[in-house]
Amino acid sequence: MSDLQHFWAVVPAGGAGTRLWPLSRAASPKFLHDLTGVGRSLLQQTVDRLRPLAADRVVVVTGAAHRDAVVAQLPELDPSSVVAEPSPRDSMAAVGLAAALLERRDPDAVMGSFAADHVIADPLAFEDAVRRAVAAAEDDWLVTLGIAPTYAATGFGYIRLGEGLPGHEGVHVVGEFVEKPSADVATGYVASGDFRWNAGMFVCRPRVLLDLLAGEDPGFAAELREIAGDPESLAERWPRLPRIALDHAVAEPAAAAGRVAVVPADLGWDDIGDFDSLAGLLGGGAGSPTVLGDPGLVRALDASGLVVPGSGRLVSVVGLEDVVVVDTPDALLVTTRERAQHVKDVVVGLRDGGRGDLV
Amino acid sequence: MSDLQHFWAVVPAGGAGTRLWPLSRAASPKFLHDLTGVGRSLLQQTVDRLRPLAADRVVVVTGAAHRDAVVAQLPELDPSSVVAEPSPRDSMAAVGLAAALLERRDPDAVMGSFAADHVIADPLAFEDAVRRAVAAAEDDWLVTLGIAPTYAATGFGYIRLGEGLPGHEGVHVVGEFVEKPSADVATGYVASGDFRWNAGMFVCRPRVLLDLLAGEDPGFAAELREIAGDPESLAERWPRLPRIALDHAVAEPAAAAGRVAVVPADLGWDDIGDFDSLAGLLGGGAGSPTVLGDPGLVRALDASGLVVPGSGRLVSVVGLEDVVVVDTPDALLVTTRERAQHVKDVVVGLRDGGRGDLV
Repeated sequence: MSDLQHFWAVVPAGGAGTRLWPLSRAASPKFLHDLTGVGRSLLQQTVDRLRPLAADRVVVVTGAAHRDAVVAQLPELDPSSVVAEPSPRDSMAAVGLAAALLERRDPDAVMGSFAADHVIADPLAFEDAVRRAVAAAEDDWLVTLGIAPTYAATGFGYIRLGEGLPGHEGVHVVGEFVEKPSADVATGYVASGDFRWNAGMFVCRPRVLLDLLAGEDPGFAAELREIAGDPESLAERWPRLPRIALDHAVAEPAAAAGRVAVVPADLGWDDIGDFDSLAGLLGGGAGSPTVLGDPGLVRALDASGLVVPGSGRLVSVVGLEDVVVVDTPDALLVTTRERAQHVKDVVVGLRDGGRGDLV
Repeated sequence: MSDLQHFWAVVPAGGAGTRLWPLSRAASPKFLHDLTGVGRSLLQQTVDRLRPLAADRVVVVTGAAHRDAVVAQLPELDPSSVVAEPSPRDSMAAVGLAAALLERRDPDAVMGSFAADHVIADPLAFEDAVRRAVAAAEDDWLVTLGIAPTYAATGFGYIRLGEGLPGHEGVHVVGEFVEKPSADVATGYVASGDFRWNAGMFVCRPRVLLDLLAGEDPGFAAELREIAGDPESLAERWPRLPRIALDHAVAEPAAAAGRVAVVPADLGWDDIGDFDSLAGLLGGGAGSPTVLGDPGLVRALDASGLVVPGSGRLVSVVGLEDVVVVDTPDALLVTTRERAQHVKDVVVGLRDGGRGDLV
């Protein structure tokens, strides 16, 4: 395995987390929040997890609006390690920009891209998987981590495992990436044992990523490399970049060409997609709701679910099972774990209905 | 019928309304709130309803802590008409004090006592019932209004109708007062047609009320008459008065002695006992929650019930039927219409648990 001396961690810190409204807002998105009650934001936890692997070789790519907040949350990083995107252009542009910068900075670099708003319960398993991925990436594979599915999720894409990769124990060639499946198909995937969740974690040489992109969209890759050579041109060139996810731009076509490897891993991974997911992650007894915040502010009778007392006010819940109550200084959400994914509809309604100040 | 020239309206303004927490608080009880969204508090609506009958002859009896708020809400009344109890002593003391004061003030007085925190949808039916009651009271009956039951309530006492009262159309002798019944018994009462709800509304000569009290507890009646003759002695004498409801102290024994009459009436009466009752009273469609307050502050998806946006914050409710959400600046309640009566348990828990500031 690699000694990781040239391993660079790239952390795309984007995504609104609208299903976690009113905690997560456009001005203060999910990754800036301590959603697990450990005293560190998801971003901080992500960097904490990567520092043993990458030391100071951490690059965060975030929106210009969030750069100051990111720098403030990560005082241990040199501020120059926090790259600001002028506007949101999806993951290919964000990760591609980091790749282009690293390609010039360290010719031997291997980069790993890990979203700022996921949780991983088993950091040792994560480290082991990353080490395997880096070793394969040093052989010029585009490597992804494939999460062991814990249920027949319909909200994630899946990765079908192909043959084992010779010389790399615990690494497979990717058979294919498949889009979010129906419930029946997902059940079949999980039962087969051949599928893993695609959590969007990629490890590769920057050159490999950009060359794969160049094979699909030469202009896109060229623009990224030109920005890296002339950072002053970022503001001008950035708005011209395509809005496309890295999976679609590179990973899926590369997999079809047999160029992608996967490290199956059981990390205790969770993307905290909504309050149902958060409630499950936080656990807690059936007899009372889980509290994210000060338990002294919650009075519950015959209630279960998740309560977030986030305004300092007392929150009382009586006679509701699997309820979700999220209290913030300017907005309150009351829903159920079952309906948690519909919170995004509230956000859309607020934005369209003249209350964009609250989203 | 009477010309009402000597009719005095007495309004006991007490009761914490703990099942309406966090709207109703010890420092700001139910009767001070506009619970029906008409722009007038329950107290104001009560006085508004009585002014056509009693003109300026309105006396409000309230706790010393609430006297200033009552005076402020009723600028049309002479402040001397608002009598402050030094401490809560239940309804016999409150109404008895008003009776003793009126007995001295107007020898021909007939008084009617009507709680400050009930609603009556049909003021004309109320006026008609009061006129009949006053006429019977002028013949020295203790008269109550008997509310036509709309369901088999177990939370109210009932009045059994006896024979018609000769010379008084639409008035009956009271057969008996019965305590809150079981569900089965209540169903039988309603089916029989012979029972009315006891809403605690009494009409009588002050002298009759005090003499009936004197028959049961001579010392109590004497103390009240002595306070009326020497108002300076109120603070000293008041704490010695028994804590007892007027029903138990006077009405039940007087009924057993054949001294009580009842005017059956269909008034659209409601005591707004809890948020379920309030939700029913306010009505509204099944497809969205009823809003008490600014509807622009509520965003509901697949929800019904009652939402009170009382802090200026946006309240969003998703996927909950018959939910109750009451948002105030320092406390939030989330429950269901079905469990609304258990809100009082929250109040007890807060009082016992060091958060008496919130109750």
